Amino acid sequence: MKSPAGLLLAAIELDRDSATPLYRQLYLQIRKQILTGRLQGGIRLPSTRTLSQELKLSRITLLNAFDQLIAEGFLVSRTGAGTYVGDEWERSGHTEPPPPAPPQLSDLSQSMLSLRSHHFRGVSYAHYSADTPTSFLPSHGAFEAFPQHLWKRLLARHSQKPSKDMLGYGELQGLQALRQAIAEYVFDARGIDCSAEQVVIVSGAQQAFNLLAMLLLNPDDPVWMEDPGHIAARIAFQAHGCRVTPVRIDEQGIDVQQGIAECPEACLVFTTPSRQHPLGVTLSHARRLQLIDWAAAHQRWVIEDDCDSELRYSGRQLPALYAMDQSDRVIYVGTFSKVLFPSLRLGYVVLPPALVEPFCTLRAVLDRSPPTLLQAVTADFMSEGHFIGHIRRMRALYQARQSCLVGVLERRLGHFLRITPVEAGMHLIAWLPAHLDDQDIARQLAGHGVHTYALSDYCLQRYLPPALLLGFAGTAQAEAETKVQALVQALKALGQPV
Amino acid sequence: MKSPAGLLLAAIELDRDSATPLYRQLYLQIRKQILTGRLQGGIRLPSTRTLSQELKLSRITLLNAFDQLIAEGFLVSRTGAGTYVGDEWERSGHTEPPPPAPPQLSDLSQSMLSLRSHHFRGVSYAHYSADTPTSFLPSHGAFEAFPQHLWKRLLARHSQKPSKDMLGYGELQGLQALRQAIAEYVFDARGIDCSAEQVVIVSGAQQAFNLLAMLLLNPDDPVWMEDPGHIAARIAFQAHGCRVTPVRIDEQGIDVQQGIAECPEACLVFTTPSRQHPLGVTLSHARRLQLIDWAAAHQRWVIEDDCDSELRYSGRQLPALYAMDQSDRVIYVGTFSKVLFPSLRLGYVVLPPALVEPFCTLRAVLDRSPPTLLQAVTADFMSEGHFIGHIRRMRALYQARQSCLVGVLERRLGHFLRITPVEAGMHLIAWLPAHLDDQDIARQLAGHGVHTYALSDYCLQRYLPPALLLGFAGTAQAEAETKVQALVQALKALGQPV
Repeated sequence: MKSPAGLLLAAIELDRDSATPLYRQLYLQIRKQILTGRLQGGIRLPSTRTLSQELKLSRITLLNAFDQLIAEGFLVSRTGAGTYVGDEWERSGHTEPPPPAPPQLSDLSQSMLSLRSHHFRGVSYAHYSADTPTSFLPSHGAFEAFPQHLWKRLLARHSQKPSKDMLGYGELQGLQALRQAIAEYVFDARGIDCSAEQVVIVSGAQQAFNLLAMLLLNPDDPVWMEDPGHIAARIAFQAHGCRVTPVRIDEQGIDVQQGIAECPEACLVFTTPSRQHPLGVTLSHARRLQLIDWAAAHQRWVIEDDCDSELRYSGRQLPALYAMDQSDRVIYVGTFSKVLFPSLRLGYVVLPPALVEPFCTLRAVLDRSPPTLLQAVTADFMSEGHFIGHIRRMRALYQARQSCLVGVLERRLGHFLRITPVEAGMHLIAWLPAHLDDQDIARQLAGHGVHTYALSDYCLQRYLPPALLLGFAGTAQAEAETKVQALVQALKALGQPV
Repeated sequence: MKSPAGLLLAAIELDRDSATPLYRQLYLQIRKQILTGRLQGGIRLPSTRTLSQELKLSRITLLNAFDQLIAEGFLVSRTGAGTYVGDEWERSGHTEPPPPAPPQLSDLSQSMLSLRSHHFRGVSYAHYSADTPTSFLPSHGAFEAFPQHLWKRLLARHSQKPSKDMLGYGELQGLQALRQAIAEYVFDARGIDCSAEQVVIVSGAQQAFNLLAMLLLNPDDPVWMEDPGHIAARIAFQAHGCRVTPVRIDEQGIDVQQGIAECPEACLVFTTPSRQHPLGVTLSHARRLQLIDWAAAHQRWVIEDDCDSELRYSGRQLPALYAMDQSDRVIYVGTFSKVLFPSLRLGYVVLPPALVEPFCTLRAVLDRSPPTLLQAVTADFMSEGHFIGHIRRMRALYQARQSCLVGVLERRLGHFLRITPVEAGMHLIAWLPAHLDDQDIARQLAGHGVHTYALSDYCLQRYLPPALLLGFAGTAQAEAETKVQALVQALKALGQPV
């Protein structure tokens, strides 16, 4: 067995071409040997003269490393007696402890994680990141059409001088200028008459759903969820222990009468009235009145997730539920993820006045306001008129992309898929032959590099014919033929008659 | 009573100097009258010819407004019969409904909010935003010293072209480049040997505490909290229903023996070993061993909030608890709020391997990864060496600021306050005469524009002498005299013998 000093010398490998200075390399390596127990407390190190010769290092380099190790207590210098390893680092005996077996996830899930964690076991958090041209994932927009040059200029405008306003903890409710711009936008676009004081900025709709679940619901409280419906919202409510009651969707949207008949005690309704997620139906005016009247009469909460209201290509845009509600029961949730971009991580909630203070308090417990810089840039983008123009351009672009993709799909796969174009949103529904399992098909297509979602993934109880969600917003007209060809090839490879 | 048409005409006020086009003004005003019920379903509007004359508007302008209102169903055009208000908008009868009384917060808190909301009632979320030069708030750093010019350049570098990488949903665990830079930093600075796969980026330490509470703890699970200790962390654990057991702090840090004696069943320990928050003590090496050994033997979790480890001015920096733990019981939480800036909203968690997947899954349920742009800029700032240099400069700056402020305080208030300088962090402790109530004093000082925190706010059970936390990091040497003078004046105004 090597002597401790030999151990030290043998283990040190210096890279003279590295950008890391030699003294720092030496420092890190000695420290690691001490922390891992290879060099134990009380051991005397070779003199700097010896080390200097063995390692071919100047004594200055050695002393620099030793000074730092001594300052941190890893080494102890005894005047006239040399340098020793500090003995505080010695953990146990003189044998190296056997490396402990890492705990297994299966053990953890059963005994070491919270009970609520079973609500989200199996949720996939993997992100599909490679840029596959054959992907039809619904959340992929036309990133290349984003006005990046303008955005960069606004970023620079707010990055001139370091200031407490931009760098410090911002307004917890969100930047006033952004809240004001949102209040004006939702009035113009969605008929919502609210003040900036009722607007709270969040890091996206998903954060809003979690905050609202925590604020308004107790474990086991019943909640109506649309069936098929928003997967991530449902999991958020379940993670907070709520009991989810599926309410079916028909051509008028959520079936309020079914909800009242089957779960009249629901504390909260989660709904996507502008464009039902994922089917794309618009909640009818009559159903809106039913829902609002019931919520008012029984003091229930309604979360209106206004997803994709900006991206409407045809059919009538109805004002938000929030705008029709006279009883302060509706909470409106909007996001910039679709109309600007997901990684901006900005969304907003418009609250009845009495909920503002408790919502902000809970928000302070969970998180702070999103980065002020990005809020300031978004506020300028809105108040200077770029936002409305951008939405208009994206709407035209996505409408053209949908028509093009529908044309190609019908020509190439019209005998196999029944295509339902949508009036709004970023994906269409492609109905499969009735005997197929859409989850199987989606999984197998992904194996061939063609990414879609299965409609069944969105269903709670309800039986719907098999279908795939095909995102069209990320498919430029010039790519449609190639992407559909890849889909055709993949379906052929699965043995489907295409 | 005016005719409906007269009502319409009388109510419309157009601002010809406004940036909003006239047709849009007209559209918004008619829509509002319909939504508020002043113009009711079935009412026929004056002809565009009449309106054109009365309102002095071109017919093109009128038709533009009407087209939009018709498209949205607010108006209905009957060929040859003129334009009518759509009747879907009619809510009830012919009288305007009385404005409903908004619900009171007191009603809401009792019957309409979740039970858990009582855990955070009364938490203040107000943010002190005006730039008061007399403030000693502990979280205010030297914002003016931030390398904004460099930061702006890095922002621009990552904003050149719109791309899916920068705009799309990013990697849920956090940007790989940032996780890699953090893994290298915590190895160099804190002795933590981990891979980038064990690092998860969060929106700040507070989000990490909430995620960990949800992941690891059930309602009523007992948790050790330092007393005095981190207020926001404690509220997070309480908001998730945990039972908080106060464990006292002495000159060696958290009293592990007391915790074991009084609450051996604790599932989790929350601790700030590098620099106890708020007292500033460093957890001794012996206590670290006790804590880690107990956690390993009984399978408890330890959250190591490594706040202010970067800002150490004197005394020895010990490696992180995480680096000493051989049993995967310690979870390390770091933040960029102090060493970069709070509004960046970036923090990180270093997890034992078995917790990575469940933590990321829960994170996907609650929120997405922070904005990719800010992660990419921070990654470059670290990997290009600016981060270490910035910390070094801030450390020197804050050390000088503390010495200066201590000098002025001792000279001007040494007979009244007993000043304890700190070895690390951004605030010092100023002990008050024993008969005073520090919360009263802090509140009254705030009334005179001098902002501090009372030590008692941080206490759970323990009696400590009254003291104020005085932030020094935000007080330039040149301002120290003026700020202390304001404090002296305010104390005089409170009738204190200064």
